[in-house]
Amino acid sequence: MGSVSAEVPHPDTLTPAWGLSWIASAAEVVHRYLPHTPLVRFWESGSLPQGVSPAGDVLPRSPLSDSEPSSRGWGGAEIWLKLETLQPIGAFKIRGALAAVADAARRGVRHVVTPSSGNHGRAVAYAARLFGLKATVVVPETIPAVKREAIAALGAEIVQVGGRSSERLEEAEHIAAERGAEIVYPYDDPRVVAGQGTLALELYPFLREGDVLLVPVGGGGLIAGIATAVKARFSRVRVVGVEPEGADDTRRSLEAGTRVRRETVETMADGLRAEMPGAFTFPIVQRYVDALVTVSEEEIAEALRRLFWEARIVAEPSGAVSLAGAFAVREGRGGKAAAPGDGGRLVAVISGGNVDPELFCSLIRRQP
Amino acid sequence: MGSVSAEVPHPDTLTPAWGLSWIASAAEVVHRYLPHTPLVRFWESGSLPQGVSPAGDVLPRSPLSDSEPSSRGWGGAEIWLKLETLQPIGAFKIRGALAAVADAARRGVRHVVTPSSGNHGRAVAYAARLFGLKATVVVPETIPAVKREAIAALGAEIVQVGGRSSERLEEAEHIAAERGAEIVYPYDDPRVVAGQGTLALELYPFLREGDVLLVPVGGGGLIAGIATAVKARFSRVRVVGVEPEGADDTRRSLEAGTRVRRETVETMADGLRAEMPGAFTFPIVQRYVDALVTVSEEEIAEALRRLFWEARIVAEPSGAVSLAGAFAVREGRGGKAAAPGDGGRLVAVISGGNVDPELFCSLIRRQP
Repeated sequence: MGSVSAEVPHPDTLTPAWGLSWIASAAEVVHRYLPHTPLVRFWESGSLPQGVSPAGDVLPRSPLSDSEPSSRGWGGAEIWLKLETLQPIGAFKIRGALAAVADAARRGVRHVVTPSSGNHGRAVAYAARLFGLKATVVVPETIPAVKREAIAALGAEIVQVGGRSSERLEEAEHIAAERGAEIVYPYDDPRVVAGQGTLALELYPFLREGDVLLVPVGGGGLIAGIATAVKARFSRVRVVGVEPEGADDTRRSLEAGTRVRRETVETMADGLRAEMPGAFTFPIVQRYVDALVTVSEEEIAEALRRLFWEARIVAEPSGAVSLAGAFAVREGRGGKAAAPGDGGRLVAVISGGNVDPELFCSLIRRQP
Repeated sequence: MGSVSAEVPHPDTLTPAWGLSWIASAAEVVHRYLPHTPLVRFWESGSLPQGVSPAGDVLPRSPLSDSEPSSRGWGGAEIWLKLETLQPIGAFKIRGALAAVADAARRGVRHVVTPSSGNHGRAVAYAARLFGLKATVVVPETIPAVKREAIAALGAEIVQVGGRSSERLEEAEHIAAERGAEIVYPYDDPRVVAGQGTLALELYPFLREGDVLLVPVGGGGLIAGIATAVKARFSRVRVVGVEPEGADDTRRSLEAGTRVRRETVETMADGLRAEMPGAFTFPIVQRYVDALVTVSEEEIAEALRRLFWEARIVAEPSGAVSLAGAFAVREGRGGKAAAPGDGGRLVAVISGGNVDPELFCSLIRRQP
């Protein structure tokens, strides 16, 4: 880990086979079928506009002005939200799935299979339907009903196995070998990571050096793609990963300097329950991610609650994790490596909004 | 009412004192302090992408392509959502309030008062704080707690009276006379209507002739502003008002050809409980609005529910009314006057998202 300087070579120059050029290629497909998701200011109740003297200029500084930073130092840094909840399937996963399935279709593949905890499976089902391929999705028995039904509605075959990601992987590999299907891995697939990286291209016009990007971390596919694209253009934009405390395999792996498996993962953020970082994604995370902060279950709940009350946004726990991380960074967690520069803003990727209504309601009832 | 043709003169030429030029002036303030709210596609579960032959071109028609209309006739017309839920106060009301309060501040006014059922009061409180004015908000006793608390948090004085809009109006006029405050009416104020019209300017780059715009109707301020701006540029974009059946004072007034008071209004859409159309807004509605459809309480609930389940969007009942109207129009309600042209899209203004969590949860629990 550690901070990234302009001297670090870009992955394109290190590993010519994968890097920004893959992300640009993925964008050709992704931006043909998917919208640029909105980037919106988080208008916190705690950061209301301040009045100006009515006798003076009636046009006080604009909260949207780029020329005058309106953040009041680090603690008052503006927070912006990248709403992947507004993707067709309600999560960023559609980016990577579309890139990978388009590649498979181009090579004549007729059947794709994927091991997925939910959103990735739904995304592969969506992309397969778009391109006319058969899809099989291997899901855990613990998958929320809302996610399982959404996959089924897309015409995909569903296979349920135990709760561990390793079980899903084994079953997907079995189906691939037995039935000639091609596996689309949730994160350890260069095409998928390239697809996720297209999110960062949409931020290019907005980002300034000194900004901080907060990204939920499961297997690392989203942050690996984003970090690669961001660092190619902005050497001093911080890319900060956020993990639930109960699923901090990437934090442990970064400390150990090698991929570490966490035998038990416990978090309501069901999209981030990977047991260890990806073989493909981890070296990219090691090289390009500036810091990693962990957040508690109560912090995740509070972020989800504030998204409903203050921004009228539906997030799933995995999607609210990044906002919890933004609050943590404003309090100084993550240290200098996670801190915004002067006037820098915090941009939280709200990665998905497919939440069980019972869970959602149990969390939002209490006012923040 | 009736359909509007290109021959109808624009209000600017009829009443030079008010029209598009006012909206353009309001936009100078509104777009300095407020974001352009996102316009997003409603990716309905029922309108999934169709596959193409995997042997053929792997890039089937884009669901976002402008050149090939992807709507399958009238019933399959695309639905788009203009998300006023993402305004700082969670509702479009901030547009008109900002325009009016900026005008008051410019003229040296120190204190504004407003009779409001909730969002407008909150908006005036926000704008007053921004410009350093004192604000008094007269609200009904039935105001949802979430809305009352939000107004108080903005530093405004709150005065509670009975549930009828006429009671709030009388009290506001009393305060204005007694304490020298200036009234900012929720809709019968040309400055407020001009501010609401700025929403339509943000749609200019998107709209095409043949599109249909669906707008919730309470006192008529939002639709009057929008219709004025839209018809100045697009003679064949339909502007369709949507009212709850239990608050159909505008429908009755249009039929009668004059403003009719409805003695009792009953709807969960608390932002649309005006008892009769505005004196200023009604002639504009008569002239420029193509059709008015009414929707039942169950249809409002269903639209709110589908926004949560299929689009991960929080809407208050008043905000979901327009989507309920879009579904009604797709079924042929509103007749030819409300129908999209060939390839025309339905654009529903989701006007606000400040909903009581108990009500919200009672509605979203049941899957659509």
